[in-house]
Amino acid sequence: MSARNLLVAHGGGPTAVMNASLAGTVAEAQRQGAVDRIFAARRGIEGVVANDLVELTSMSGAELERLSQTPATAIGSCRHKVTEADFALVAATLRTNGIGYFLYNGGNDSMDTCLKLSERMDDIAVAGIPKTIDNDLAGTDHSPGFGSAARYYAVSTAELCLDVRALSIHVSVLEIMGRNAGWLCAAATLAGEAGPDAPRFVLVPERPLDEERFLASVEKEWSRSQGFVVVVSEGMVSAGGRELGAEGGVESVDSFGHRLPGGAAAYLAALIRTRLGIRSRSEKPGLLGRASAVLVSDTDRLEAREAGAAAVRELSTGNHGFMIGFRRVSNKPYSVQTVRVPLSDVANVERKLPNGYIGDDGMSITPKFAEYCRPLLGPSPYPDYFVLR
Amino acid sequence: MSARNLLVAHGGGPTAVMNASLAGTVAEAQRQGAVDRIFAARRGIEGVVANDLVELTSMSGAELERLSQTPATAIGSCRHKVTEADFALVAATLRTNGIGYFLYNGGNDSMDTCLKLSERMDDIAVAGIPKTIDNDLAGTDHSPGFGSAARYYAVSTAELCLDVRALSIHVSVLEIMGRNAGWLCAAATLAGEAGPDAPRFVLVPERPLDEERFLASVEKEWSRSQGFVVVVSEGMVSAGGRELGAEGGVESVDSFGHRLPGGAAAYLAALIRTRLGIRSRSEKPGLLGRASAVLVSDTDRLEAREAGAAAVRELSTGNHGFMIGFRRVSNKPYSVQTVRVPLSDVANVERKLPNGYIGDDGMSITPKFAEYCRPLLGPSPYPDYFVLR
Repeated sequence: MSARNLLVAHGGGPTAVMNASLAGTVAEAQRQGAVDRIFAARRGIEGVVANDLVELTSMSGAELERLSQTPATAIGSCRHKVTEADFALVAATLRTNGIGYFLYNGGNDSMDTCLKLSERMDDIAVAGIPKTIDNDLAGTDHSPGFGSAARYYAVSTAELCLDVRALSIHVSVLEIMGRNAGWLCAAATLAGEAGPDAPRFVLVPERPLDEERFLASVEKEWSRSQGFVVVVSEGMVSAGGRELGAEGGVESVDSFGHRLPGGAAAYLAALIRTRLGIRSRSEKPGLLGRASAVLVSDTDRLEAREAGAAAVRELSTGNHGFMIGFRRVSNKPYSVQTVRVPLSDVANVERKLPNGYIGDDGMSITPKFAEYCRPLLGPSPYPDYFVLR
Repeated sequence: MSARNLLVAHGGGPTAVMNASLAGTVAEAQRQGAVDRIFAARRGIEGVVANDLVELTSMSGAELERLSQTPATAIGSCRHKVTEADFALVAATLRTNGIGYFLYNGGNDSMDTCLKLSERMDDIAVAGIPKTIDNDLAGTDHSPGFGSAARYYAVSTAELCLDVRALSIHVSVLEIMGRNAGWLCAAATLAGEAGPDAPRFVLVPERPLDEERFLASVEKEWSRSQGFVVVVSEGMVSAGGRELGAEGGVESVDSFGHRLPGGAAAYLAALIRTRLGIRSRSEKPGLLGRASAVLVSDTDRLEAREAGAAAVRELSTGNHGFMIGFRRVSNKPYSVQTVRVPLSDVANVERKLPNGYIGDDGMSITPKFAEYCRPLLGPSPYPDYFVLR
């Protein structure tokens, strides 16, 4: 008889709903006759390599519910790139613990790891659960984690606009996560649906920055209306391809060789101050944007849970080598279904913001994006603010 | 017959509950027979100088409730220092609009303006409503705005700790508002009540930073446990008295001559990276910390509303020249009462974090502070996180 235990691990940066996927996986595995015991690796693939597992077989419904409401990851994660030497240790851990099913919840890099494991472990059914606030995973309409981060930025940007407009003394530059893709910056424009104001300029990495044109636009806007918000991606690049205001130093590259972003907003605020003489400041919520529990999208949380459950269902019916993706069946009313996407279509592919979502001026977002994004923020996307007319 | 209209204005940076004080003022003035019409100045004292008022006499209960739930300020604010020439214009506006009662909602600088108006306008009853997230106003146990910002930082820091611990690859340095006072940095330590972890080091302006001692402490802590949070005040100063990582340039001083803080966290993260070779990053939510509606403390909102109402009650019984303050009657159960504080005791006084709330090592906060702060966060201060044991 083949091994019937299931192992789940987390890869890469946490999100607000990654634990919801874990809860979905555990709940579904408890239901499936094909699965005996349920294990999770501590600290992601590092825990698999080191055989550091924790058993979750008998988690209660109440525990799973609380787990669903908790941001980040309760079992830990890592950014470890699997080496040749690691694969033998991974195989040993899987054999030792009678693992027949292995689920990896992560983004691009994790799906690459997942693909390699799938190709090398013939006797183990391997699959991926999507996760990224950046929304840059291929093969899916969107990824769990994005809707909640999008809601965080839409609401936070609306509140920042309220604040900046109330005081009317500065340009606030808000730095938004998303690595090399502008999806979350685009989500900040939904602030205009939440409150009386929206960011005046949206700078995404898909459109490298022409500083002179940007400064001229800010100066013109300031002459019309003092006190507005600019949003900029943490991964923003200059026209020359250099990252804006990157925090330098030895630790600016992660173990996958990706540059660590950050500093773009502080750079632009200084530029506005020194070049235009306009008071400017920067806000960089950074990791807070992916860790917020109170701003979670209920739709995102439900879908994250469903992605974790669907992966178990597919594995237990004999499928493997896939990542769960979402296909949008309809937008009004919003409806999605889970699909299997070949891991080879996903691994290491970076999905950028499509041209149709970026305005012709390269510093704005089209209404078409709002149609795409709005349902992902959940049934009550925005607070109801009072605005004096 | 003396003038019977009331004018209210906002001064300085917005908070999450400043509009709640406005709602309290309007609702109470609607009830008081001594008040005829209710006006608010747009953009704070600038609107008084320019006679730019809006009438709020007939706001409905539903509108006042929505106003209470909206962060920032619906009528606008400013950072304008009143000049001699302005006083004549202010007097004209008050006379033109039949103003007998003038309420100014603000912090230290605004209470200075309030005092000057009170001294010069014999025929107008002037009073102040306290407002500051920094909690640095004298003469009161705490100020409306602080409890909500404290809750924002306590919960956000707990979630940042969850995230940073899950990944365990870096030191995150979180920059917290509060100007020259460490109250909000201290509030971040309540993260330990909210989640499984608390910041390991808390750097407040009341204790200038010894960089070498700090670096040695971080290095030692890192050797024990990788992945932790440091919080630092935006107004943090070095042992030499220089502001840490201040954003330079022409706009770094406001119209009151105060230096604009910011950049301390990015500075420390770079220091940790370059000097210790430990991966480090910074988060600076900045204005988001005072603008969040979803993390508002219900206690803070109620008290803000009560402060606005109490000021009107006191004015209409003939008192003036005071700021409303809170006196803590009991801590268990938490109970406060409003008191009148002479404006001269408040204007331009900056209340720092007392020595008894700062640990002997100068980089931690004592349990005594938690006793003081906990009730201000409201009846359900923290989310209920799941933690794997």
